[in-house]
Amino acid sequence: MRIYDIIAKKRDSGELTREEISFFVKGCTSGEIPDYQTSALLMAIYLNGMTDRETSDLTSEMAKSGDTADMSAIEGLTVDKHSTGGVGDKTTLIVVPIVAALGGKVAKMSGRGLGHTGGTVDKLESIPGFRTELSPKEFFDNVNALGAAMIGQSGNLAPADKKLYALRDVTATVSCIPLIASSIMSKKLASGSDCIVLDVKVGSGAFMKSLDDAKQLARQMVNIGNACGRKVSAVLTNMDIPLGFAVGNSLEVIEAVKVLKGEQKGDLYDVCIELAANMFALTSGKSLDECRELAKGSVENGSAFRKLKEIVNAQSGDVKVLDDTDLFAKAKYSFNITADESGYISRLDSEKIGISSVVLGAGRETKGEKIDHSAGIILNKKTGDLVNKGDVLATLYTNNQDKLCNAEKIFLSAVEFSDEKPNKEPLIY
Amino acid sequence: MRIYDIIAKKRDSGELTREEISFFVKGCTSGEIPDYQTSALLMAIYLNGMTDRETSDLTSEMAKSGDTADMSAIEGLTVDKHSTGGVGDKTTLIVVPIVAALGGKVAKMSGRGLGHTGGTVDKLESIPGFRTELSPKEFFDNVNALGAAMIGQSGNLAPADKKLYALRDVTATVSCIPLIASSIMSKKLASGSDCIVLDVKVGSGAFMKSLDDAKQLARQMVNIGNACGRKVSAVLTNMDIPLGFAVGNSLEVIEAVKVLKGEQKGDLYDVCIELAANMFALTSGKSLDECRELAKGSVENGSAFRKLKEIVNAQSGDVKVLDDTDLFAKAKYSFNITADESGYISRLDSEKIGISSVVLGAGRETKGEKIDHSAGIILNKKTGDLVNKGDVLATLYTNNQDKLCNAEKIFLSAVEFSDEKPNKEPLIY
Repeated sequence: MRIYDIIAKKRDSGELTREEISFFVKGCTSGEIPDYQTSALLMAIYLNGMTDRETSDLTSEMAKSGDTADMSAIEGLTVDKHSTGGVGDKTTLIVVPIVAALGGKVAKMSGRGLGHTGGTVDKLESIPGFRTELSPKEFFDNVNALGAAMIGQSGNLAPADKKLYALRDVTATVSCIPLIASSIMSKKLASGSDCIVLDVKVGSGAFMKSLDDAKQLARQMVNIGNACGRKVSAVLTNMDIPLGFAVGNSLEVIEAVKVLKGEQKGDLYDVCIELAANMFALTSGKSLDECRELAKGSVENGSAFRKLKEIVNAQSGDVKVLDDTDLFAKAKYSFNITADESGYISRLDSEKIGISSVVLGAGRETKGEKIDHSAGIILNKKTGDLVNKGDVLATLYTNNQDKLCNAEKIFLSAVEFSDEKPNKEPLIY
Repeated sequence: MRIYDIIAKKRDSGELTREEISFFVKGCTSGEIPDYQTSALLMAIYLNGMTDRETSDLTSEMAKSGDTADMSAIEGLTVDKHSTGGVGDKTTLIVVPIVAALGGKVAKMSGRGLGHTGGTVDKLESIPGFRTELSPKEFFDNVNALGAAMIGQSGNLAPADKKLYALRDVTATVSCIPLIASSIMSKKLASGSDCIVLDVKVGSGAFMKSLDDAKQLARQMVNIGNACGRKVSAVLTNMDIPLGFAVGNSLEVIEAVKVLKGEQKGDLYDVCIELAANMFALTSGKSLDECRELAKGSVENGSAFRKLKEIVNAQSGDVKVLDDTDLFAKAKYSFNITADESGYISRLDSEKIGISSVVLGAGRETKGEKIDHSAGIILNKKTGDLVNKGDVLATLYTNNQDKLCNAEKIFLSAVEFSDEKPNKEPLIY
C-alpha cells in the first residue's frame, strides 16, 4: 500500500477502505508518512468529503492510535460529556455532581487551559488541596463509591488527533465536518466511557456557523459513537460565550457553586440542566423530561451541591471554601471597565475575552506555565443588554497591576455596540 | 500576508492575486513556507483550478525564481522547442540542424537523462570529443556564426519549479493542466529564447490522455508565452513512443544521422519536419506550408546534415563518426528478443522500455552515474505491427552481459498483443 495512491484516490473523490485509512493513521502517527503528504490528503478530504463509513473508520483508527482508558473496573455504565465551549465554560463543574447525585457514574478526565481557553483541571486546582492526579485504583474506587471523580487527562490519548489537528491548524483544513467529528470523537472513544453527551455550539463565534452544519456535525458524531458501540446524544446550544458571568479559575468555581446552590439561574443553569438530563437519560434509560425534572430537583434539594462537596473531599480538597466562597484567595487588584458609549451590546468576542483573562494571569500562553487562580473577569453586561455610557461592563481581577491596562484594551476590543436590540437566539435548539 | 490565508482562499475557489502568487513562489523557493503548507495549496489548486491570469502569474514568478539566460548577444530572434517526449526522443538532434540550415538561430540548452528518460546532452557526448560545456562567449559566437549550438543546462533555472515538481510528484498533484503548463513554461521563459515551439504529446502513455486536454494544455502554454512577450506555437503529436526505432545514446545519434541524410522516413522524420517548420515559421514569419517544404528540402539537399557536422565540429566533436556511423564504439553484446506469441502489437509501454535500456547501461538511476553510450535497444516491431511467433521484436545492446536477462524480462512486460489490428491514430493532430 502506498500513501500516494490513497491521496490520488481521495483526490478523485474515491471512498477509502478501512485498510487504507488504517495505513494512513498509523503512518502519520509514527512519522513514516511525511507531513507534506498528510496535508495534501487533508486538503483532498476537505474538498471532496468523506462518507459516514470513512469518517467512522477514521475515528476509530485515531482512537486506537495511542492509549485507551479501560473503565471495566467501574460498576454500571459510565457517562462523559464533551463541550466545545472554551472560554468561561464551567459546565463540567456543575453537571458532574448533578449526574452523580442522581445515581449516574461519571469518570471525568479533563485537560488544562492553553491559550485563550480554560481547562477544568486548572479550575479544580483553585480549590485548596484538591488533587487532580489519582491512581487508577483511587479513581475507579471514587467513581464506584460516589458516582464521580474528576482528574487530569493522563497517558497518550489519540496522538493521531494531536498530529492531524496541528497540521489542519496551519493548512486551512480545520472547518471540515468529517475531520471535526473524527477529532472530537476519537478522544472521547479513547477515554472509554459507555455513554457520551455532546454539546455542539452554533453561532458566529463557533466552528459551526449555521444550525444546518451543526446538526450535520452532531448527526455524524452520534453515528460514529453508535458504530463503535457507545450511546451518544447531542445538545445544540447557542454560542453566547461565556455562559454565565465568570472567566477565570476560582471565579468560575464560585459561580458553579452558586448554580449548584440554586442561587443563580439563567443561561448557564439552563444549559447545565439540559446536559445533565441528557447524560442521565442515556445511562438510566429514563425519559429526557423526567431527567430534566430530576436534575432540577437535585439542585433544589441540595443533593447536587452535597455531591460536589463529597467529590472534593474525596480528592483532598478543602470543602470549607465551597460552603463559604469568600474564603477563596482574592486577587489583590480589581478594576471596573466602564462603557464609553451607549447602546445594545451586539457581540462579545469570546476569544478576545479569553485572551484578556490570560493577560490578567488566569491562563497560560505555553504549556507548563504557572497560572494565577484568583485572576479573571466578571462580566456585568452580556450580548443583548442595553448599556448606558459609564455603566460597568465588567470587573477585572489580577495580582499584577501592570497588566490591567493591556487587559482592559483587549476586553474593550471584544465588545461591539449597536443602536438596535439584537435578535435573541434560542439558547438550546 | 500569510500563506494560511492564501491556502484558505484557493480552498474556497478564490482567485489569487499576483502579489499572493509571488509571496507563495518566493516563500516556497526560500524554504520559509514549509512543504506541508505548499502541498495543501497544490491540492487546492489541483481540485479548484486556476484562471489563465493566475497561471501566467505563477509561471512568470517561477521563471524569475532563479537565474535567467540573457540571449541579447545573439543577433536576431532565437527559437527553442520543448518536447515532453522522454524515451527515445532524439528530435532535438534533428530539428536543430534543420532550423539552423534554414537560417534560424537555435541556442539550445538541454538536460541529462535521469531514470527512464534520456537526455540530449548524454546523446551528444556519445560523439567522440564533443564538448557540451561552452563558455557563454563561445556559445553565443557559435550561434551567431552557425545558427546553432547545443550545450548542457547550467545555472539555477526556475528552482521554484524543481521544488514544486518534487512535491507534486509525491502528493498526486502532477496531472493538473495549470501546474503542468506553468512548470514547462517557467523553464522555457527562464531559458530566454524569443520563440518557443511546444511538442505536446497525446495518448494513453502521455500526461494528456485526451485530445481535448492536450489542446487545453497547449492553449494555456501559448497564452502564458504570449503574455510574457514570447512567440509560441504548439504541435500536438501522438504518443507512439519511441519515435523511430532507437533507444540509447549513440544508437539515437546514428538514427538522427540517418534521418538527416534522408535515409529514414516515417514517424520520426514526419514529427521533426513539423517541429522544424513551426520553429522556422515563428522566427522567419514565413507560412507554415512554405517552412515545411524548406525543412524537407534541407534534408534532401544535404544542407541539414552538413549543418550538424558544422555544429559538431565547432564543439570539438569528431565528425568522421557522422559520415561513417560504423565508426561509433560498439557494444560488446547484442541479443535478439523474439515473440513467443503471434498477433498485433497493441501497446509498447514507453516507461518500461526506458527502464530496460537503463538496465542495459544506457541511462542512470541517480544523478552523476556514468552511462554506457553504446548500450540500448533497437526496436524491430512497433505498435500496430503484425508479429509471428519467433519474429525478432527488438535487439538489446550492452557491455554487461549479466544484464541481458533482466532487460529482456522488462522489455517483454512492455509489449501487449491483441488479435485485432489496433486503430491507427494520426501522428500529428
